Amino acid sequence: MELAVIIPVLAMSDEMIRARIELLREKALPTTQFHIYQSQRGPGAIESRCDRQLAGDEVMRLSCQAQRDGCAAAIVWCAGDPAVDAARELVDIPVIGTGEAGMLFAYHLAQNFCLLTGDEDLAATSYDVAVRSGLGRRMVSIRGIQMSVEKLRTDREAALEKLAQVAEEAVRQDGAHAFVFGCLALTGMGEALTERIGLPVVDSAHCAVSLAESLVKMGLRYSRRTYAAPPVLPENLRL
Amino acid sequence: MELAVIIPVLAMSDEMIRARIELLREKALPTTQFHIYQSQRGPGAIESRCDRQLAGDEVMRLSCQAQRDGCAAAIVWCAGDPAVDAARELVDIPVIGTGEAGMLFAYHLAQNFCLLTGDEDLAATSYDVAVRSGLGRRMVSIRGIQMSVEKLRTDREAALEKLAQVAEEAVRQDGAHAFVFGCLALTGMGEALTERIGLPVVDSAHCAVSLAESLVKMGLRYSRRTYAAPPVLPENLRL
Amino acid sequence: MELAVIIPVLAMSDEMIRARIELLREKALPTTQFHIYQSQRGPGAIESRCDRQLAGDEVMRLSCQAQRDGCAAAIVWCAGDPAVDAARELVDIPVIGTGEAGMLFAYHLAQNFCLLTGDEDLAATSYDVAVRSGLGRRMVSIRGIQMSVEKLRTDREAALEKLAQVAEEAVRQDGAHAFVFGCLALTGMGEALTERIGLPVVDSAHCAVSLAESLVKMGLRYSRRTYAAPPVLPENLRL
Amino acid sequence: MELAVIIPVLAMSDEMIRARIELLREKALPTTQFHIYQSQRGPGAIESRCDRQLAGDEVMRLSCQAQRDGCAAAIVWCAGDPAVDAARELVDIPVIGTGEAGMLFAYHLAQNFCLLTGDEDLAATSYDVAVRSGLGRRMVSIRGIQMSVEKLRTDREAALEKLAQVAEEAVRQDGAHAFVFGCLALTGMGEALTERIGLPVVDSAHCAVSLAESLVKMGLRYSRRTYAAPPVLPENLRL
Amino acid sequence: MELAVIIPVLAMSDEMIRARIELLREKALPTTQFHIYQSQRGPGAIESRCDRQLAGDEVMRLSCQAQRDGCAAAIVWCAGDPAVDAARELVDIPVIGTGEAGMLFAYHLAQNFCLLTGDEDLAATSYDVAVRSGLGRRMVSIRGIQMSVEKLRTDREAALEKLAQVAEEAVRQDGAHAFVFGCLALTGMGEALTERIGLPVVDSAHCAVSLAESLVKMGLRYSRRTYAAPPVLPENLRL
Amino acid sequence: MELAVIIPVLAMSDEMIRARIELLREKALPTTQFHIYQSQRGPGAIESRCDRQLAGDEVMRLSCQAQRDGCAAAIVWCAGDPAVDAARELVDIPVIGTGEAGMLFAYHLAQNFCLLTGDEDLAATSYDVAVRSGLGRRMVSIRGIQMSVEKLRTDREAALEKLAQVAEEAVRQDGAHAFVFGCLALTGMGEALTERIGLPVVDSAHCAVSLAESLVKMGLRYSRRTYAAPPVLPENLRL
Repeated sequence: MELAVIIPVLAMSDEMIRARIELLREKALPTTQFHIYQSQRGPGAIESRCDRQLAGDEVMRLSCQAQRDGCAAAIVWCAGDPAVDAARELVDIPVIGTGEAGMLFAYHLAQNFCLLTGDEDLAATSYDVAVRSGLGRRMVSIRGIQMSVEKLRTDREAALEKLAQVAEEAVRQDGAHAFVFGCLALTGMGEALTERIGLPVVDSAHCAVSLAESLVKMGLRYSRRTYAAPPVLPENLRL
Repeated sequence: MELAVIIPVLAMSDEMIRARIELLREKALPTTQFHIYQSQRGPGAIESRCDRQLAGDEVMRLSCQAQRDGCAAAIVWCAGDPAVDAARELVDIPVIGTGEAGMLFAYHLAQNFCLLTGDEDLAATSYDVAVRSGLGRRMVSIRGIQMSVEKLRTDREAALEKLAQVAEEAVRQDGAHAFVFGCLALTGMGEALTERIGLPVVDSAHCAVSLAESLVKMGLRYSRRTYAAPPVLPENLRL
Repeated sequence: MELAVIIPVLAMSDEMIRARIELLREKALPTTQFHIYQSQRGPGAIESRCDRQLAGDEVMRLSCQAQRDGCAAAIVWCAGDPAVDAARELVDIPVIGTGEAGMLFAYHLAQNFCLLTGDEDLAATSYDVAVRSGLGRRMVSIRGIQMSVEKLRTDREAALEKLAQVAEEAVRQDGAHAFVFGCLALTGMGEALTERIGLPVVDSAHCAVSLAESLVKMGLRYSRRTYAAPPVLPENLRL
Repeated sequence: MELAVIIPVLAMSDEMIRARIELLREKALPTTQFHIYQSQRGPGAIESRCDRQLAGDEVMRLSCQAQRDGCAAAIVWCAGDPAVDAARELVDIPVIGTGEAGMLFAYHLAQNFCLLTGDEDLAATSYDVAVRSGLGRRMVSIRGIQMSVEKLRTDREAALEKLAQVAEEAVRQDGAHAFVFGCLALTGMGEALTERIGLPVVDSAHCAVSLAESLVKMGLRYSRRTYAAPPVLPENLRL
Repeated sequence: MELAVIIPVLAMSDEMIRARIELLREKALPTTQFHIYQSQRGPGAIESRCDRQLAGDEVMRLSCQAQRDGCAAAIVWCAGDPAVDAARELVDIPVIGTGEAGMLFAYHLAQNFCLLTGDEDLAATSYDVAVRSGLGRRMVSIRGIQMSVEKLRTDREAALEKLAQVAEEAVRQDGAHAFVFGCLALTGMGEALTERIGLPVVDSAHCAVSLAESLVKMGLRYSRRTYAAPPVLPENLRL
Repeated sequence: MELAVIIPVLAMSDEMIRARIELLREKALPTTQFHIYQSQRGPGAIESRCDRQLAGDEVMRLSCQAQRDGCAAAIVWCAGDPAVDAARELVDIPVIGTGEAGMLFAYHLAQNFCLLTGDEDLAATSYDVAVRSGLGRRMVSIRGIQMSVEKLRTDREAALEKLAQVAEEAVRQDGAHAFVFGCLALTGMGEALTERIGLPVVDSAHCAVSLAESLVKMGLRYSRRTYAAPPVLPENLRL
C-alpha cells in the first residue's frame, strides 16, 4: 500500500524526516510504502492555531498530489491536524489526522486519558482536536514535560524519565487511566513508557498509520455527507 | 470607535461591500466607523472547509493590519468564522466571528434555534462553529432556502417569502423557537422576517458589530490563556 | 434609550443606588437613560433561593411598570436573576438577567471561567443560573473572597487584593481562563482586576447593560415560544 | 406518618381537594395521614412561569407551617414545582416537588420518556423541572391532549381515550418508552392508561407521596450543602 | 408484600444473611415479607466485572423463581447490579438493582455525590452502574475506606470513624454534597454517618427496598420497550 | 499473528463458521491466522440482554484459553459484546468487542451514523454498547431490515436491496451520514452497500479484526486501571 506522509512544517531536515519514517516503518505493514510530501511554505513547527492555519494550504495541495500519485491514503504529520477536514472534502482517499487517530485509540483503551506533550501551553491545537472530535469527553488533562525539542531529541533517556514522572502525576492527581502523545517529537517512546508505567501509552503517529492501513484494507473512506466536495476550487486543488 | 470589517472573499465588488456596510451602519452606534479590509487572495466565496482554509491566511494578516491601524476591534464577514481563533492569538484587539456572534445571541434568546442559510449542503463551516463553540447544543436544525445568491440579491421579496416558509417548517417539524442567519447574504432581512413569523430572527452580522462594540466599551478581550500568543511568527504577522 | 434598572432588594439606600448607576453609566452609551425601579417589599439582599423567590413578585410588577413607562428594556440588578424568566413571559421588552448576561460574555471569551463572588456558600442562585442557561458547562469553579459587603464597599483596595489572590488560586488549581462576577457588589472592579491578573474579568452588570442596548438596537426580543404569554394574570401584571 | 400536601393554587374547591386526597390515599401507606395546606393568595392555576413565581411565597410559608405542625414531609401539589428548592433551604423536612418526583421514576423505568400534559403550550414549568434536575436528558417530547380541565374532570373516559391516542403517537413518532404526567389533573389515570398502552405511565402525584414516605422512613433529607439555610429570613419564615 | 432478596454471592453464611435482612426490616414496611433467594453457584463476592458476569446467570434464574413464587418484586443484594437488566427482560415483576437504586436517591438529594466503598480499586461495577444509568453525571468521586470486610464487620465504630474521615476529604477535595454506599457491607451505617457529617448518606440497600415497595404500590414496572421479553429462552428461565 | 475468534453462540454450524472466517480473511492481513473458539454452552443466538448474560461465562473461559494457547488477541463474534469488559480484566491480550469496534470506526468516519440490524427490537445489546462506550452520542437511529436470518443468508441480493432501502430512509428521515452493522449476519455486505448508497457502511466484524491487528502491532492493550485484574478467580479462569 502506498501511503503518503504529509509533513506540514519546514523545520524538519531530510535526515529527521527519514528517521521518523523509520519509526513509522517499525509498526507498519511490511507492504506499506511511505511517500514523503513536504510543504514548500508554511511554519517551521505547529505550536499555535496560527501555525495550524499557515500550514493548512499546503496540506490541501499535497493531499491532492498524493491522490494524483496513486497513494491509497495520506497521514498528516502533526498532532494538531491542520486542514485535515478540508483535505477530506477535496480528495477521495482517506486523510488521517495524527492527533485524532491517537485520541481515538486512547478513548477506546481506557475510561479516560491524559494527553502528554512537550509544552502544555502550546497545545491549543490538540485541545481543538479533542473538542471537534468529541473524544475530549474522556480527556482528563493535558500535561507537558517542559523539555525543548532539541533536548528531547538528543537525550531520549532523560525525556523518558520526565515523561514517566509527569504520567505518574497525572495518575495521582487527575486519575488518568491511559496516555496519548500530543506531540510527534515523542514518537517512538510509547512502548518504553508503557513498560515503565504499566499503563497504555498511545503513540499517535503509529495509530495514524494503522488507521490508514485499516481503512484502505476495508475500502472505507470518510462520509461525503460530512465532508462534501467543495463546489468550486482553485486549479491547483482539482484532481 | 474604529471597527475593521474583514472581507475574506474575493467575489464581492466594492459596490456590494458598500451596500453591506450600509446595512451594518443601520444597527451600529453613530460613533462607529467601519474600515474595510479585503483579502487580496483566497476563495470567491466560503462554501466549504477548503474555502475556509484558503481564506484564513488573509484574515490573520488583515487582523494584524487592523490593529496596527488603530482599529478597536475586527469582525470577519463570513458566518464560517475563518481563522478567527488564530487571529485572536495574534492580536490584542477582539476579533469577532460573525457566525459565533449570531449563535451566541440565538442561544441566549430561546430554548433552541434553527440556522437558516442559502444551501444547507454548504453549511459545514456553520456546523463546525456550532460544535467548537458548544452553542450547537441548542441548534435543532440547519435549513436552506435553495435560492441562488444572485436571485437572493435581486429579489428580496421572494427571498423573504421563502425564508418564512422554511422557518415555519422548522417550527412545525423541528420545534424551533428562534432563528439565526448562517449566511451573510441574508443580512438585513432579520427584522422583516421576525415580523412575518413572530419569532426572533438573529441577523448574525449585526450581532458581530454589537458584540464588538460591547467588548470595546467594556475593555474586554479574549482570554490569553485560551488564545495564547504564538511563540514564533512570520514577519508579516508581527505587530 | 430608556433603560429600566430593577432593584429587587430593599437594603440599598438611594445613595448606594445612585453610586451604582454612576458605575453603569461609565460603560453605557451616552444616549442611554437609566430609570430606577426599586422593590417596595422583598428581601434586603439576595443570598439564597428563598430570597430569590421573595424578590420575584416585585420584579414582575416592576417589569410591567417599566414597559408601561416606555422603557425599551429592563435589567434586573442581581446576579441570581430573580423571576427574570417569568418577567420575559409578561412583557414585550427584553428583561435581562445580570447573572446570565455576565456568564454569556465569560462563556464567549474563554474556554472556561471561574465565578467570583463574595461568599461561595451564598451562591446557589448563581449555580442555578449556570444550570438553567447551560452556560455552566464552561464554569470550572465558584470562589468567594470571604469579605463582608461593608468591608468590600469601604476598602476597595483590599477587595481588589483579595480578588487577585483568589483568581490566581483559580488559575492554578482549577485551570481557569477567565472570570465573571457573581455578586454585583463587585461591580466596577473588573477592569482593575483584569489589569492585575492579565485575564478577562467580566463585570456582569456592565454586560447586562450592553446586552440590553444591543437587543434594543437590533430589535430583538426573547422568543415567545420559549416565554409564552401567560393565559391569565392578576390585574397588576396586565399591560 | 403526617404528610403535608401543599396546594399552591386557589382554583380548587374543598371538594376537589378532598377528591384528590382520596386519589393519593389509594397508593399511600395506610399509616400516612394527609394534611392540607392551601395557599391564601396566588394564582388560580399554574400555567406559566409567572404563575409559578406568584405561587412560590405561599409554598415557602406553608412548608414552614407544616414543619412547625410536626409533619414529616411535604409535597407540593403542582408538577411545575413552585419554590420547592427555596422551601428545601427553609425547612428540615423533605419538600417534594411532584414534577421532579414523577420524572425521577420515569427516568428510572425506561430508556426515555414522554411527558403527557393538558396543553403542551402551558408546560414551560415542566420543561424547567426537566432542565434543572437533569432528568430531561431522557425526555423525548412533551405532548398535550388539548382538553380543558373541565372536560377532563367530567369525562374521564374521553380523557383516557385521548391520552392513549397521544401516547401512541409518542411511541410511533418520538420512540417513547414510558410516560409521565406533567399535569396533576391527570392524577389517578396512570394505571388505566398503562393497561391500555402496555407501557409504564408514571402518575407524578403518587410518586411524590411514595418518595416522601421513602425519605422519611430512611431518615434522609436534602443536602444542606446544596440547599443551605438562608442567613436571614422574614419572621413568618422562621421556624 | 412479598419481596425477594436475591443474594448473588456464595460467601455469605445464613447468619450473615439473616443479619442483613434484619437491617432491611428496620426501614421496610411492616407488611413487607422478605424471601431469600441465594445463588447455588457463582463468585464468593463481587469485586470485578468477572464476578458480576459469574453471578448473573443465577440472578436471572432466581428472578424467575421469585416471580413463580408470587413475589411482588425482587432486589439484588449487590451494588454492582449483576444481570439486573437481563432479569427485567425475563420477568414481569420489578427487579431492582441496589446500586442504581442508591444512586437514584443520591442524585435526587443533592447537586452531586461521592460514592463510598470498601476499596475503590474494586468499584468498576459501580462505575458501570453510574455510566449505564446516566446518574454518574452527578458523581464527583469514588472513595474507598481501605478496610477489610472482616474488620468492617467486627469493628463498626472504627469503620464509621474511617467513613467520616473519607467523607470529609470528599467534601473538601471533591466538593461532595452527598454520599451513597457502593458496597453493601456498609449497610446500616448510613444514619450514623449522616449524623456525624451532617450530609445525606444514602444507604443503597434500604433504597432498593423502598423503591421496590413504591413500584409495587403504584403498579409500575420497567418499560417493555426498554426491556423487551427475549424471543427464545432456556427452559429454566421460562415462567 | 494468531487471532482468536470467539463464537459465543451455539446455533452456528461448523460450515457457517468456516464461511464467516473466509469473510474475515478477505480483509485481514495475510499473516493473520484465525483460531475458532466456540462456546460449549449458552444461547443459540444473542438477541437480548439475557442471551448476552448466558453467553458471557464462555467468553471469559475462551479468552483465557486463547491467551494460554498463545493467541495475540481475541475478537468476540457478536455485536452485543458479551462479557468483553470482563474478559479484558482476565487476560493480558486485547479482547475486542465487535460491536464497539464497528461503532468506533463509524464514529470516526462521519458526523453521525445509523446502526443497521436485522430486527431493531432485538438490538438492546447494541444500544447498551453505544451507551457504555459513549460512542452513541453520534448514533442517530437504529433501523432493522425485518428479514429472517435464514432469508438473509440465502438471498443476499434481496438483503442488499432491503438494506439500501432502509439506509436511504435513514438518510432522509434521520439525517444519517454513515452506517454500521449491528448484526454480524450482515458481515461481508458492507462494500456492496457502500457502493449502492455512496456513504460509508462499516462492517463491524472486519473492524474488529483490523483493530486487533493494530493493537497487537503497536503493543497496546486495555488499561489495567480501567480493567483491573480480579483479586479472586475460579480455577478455570486462571492463566
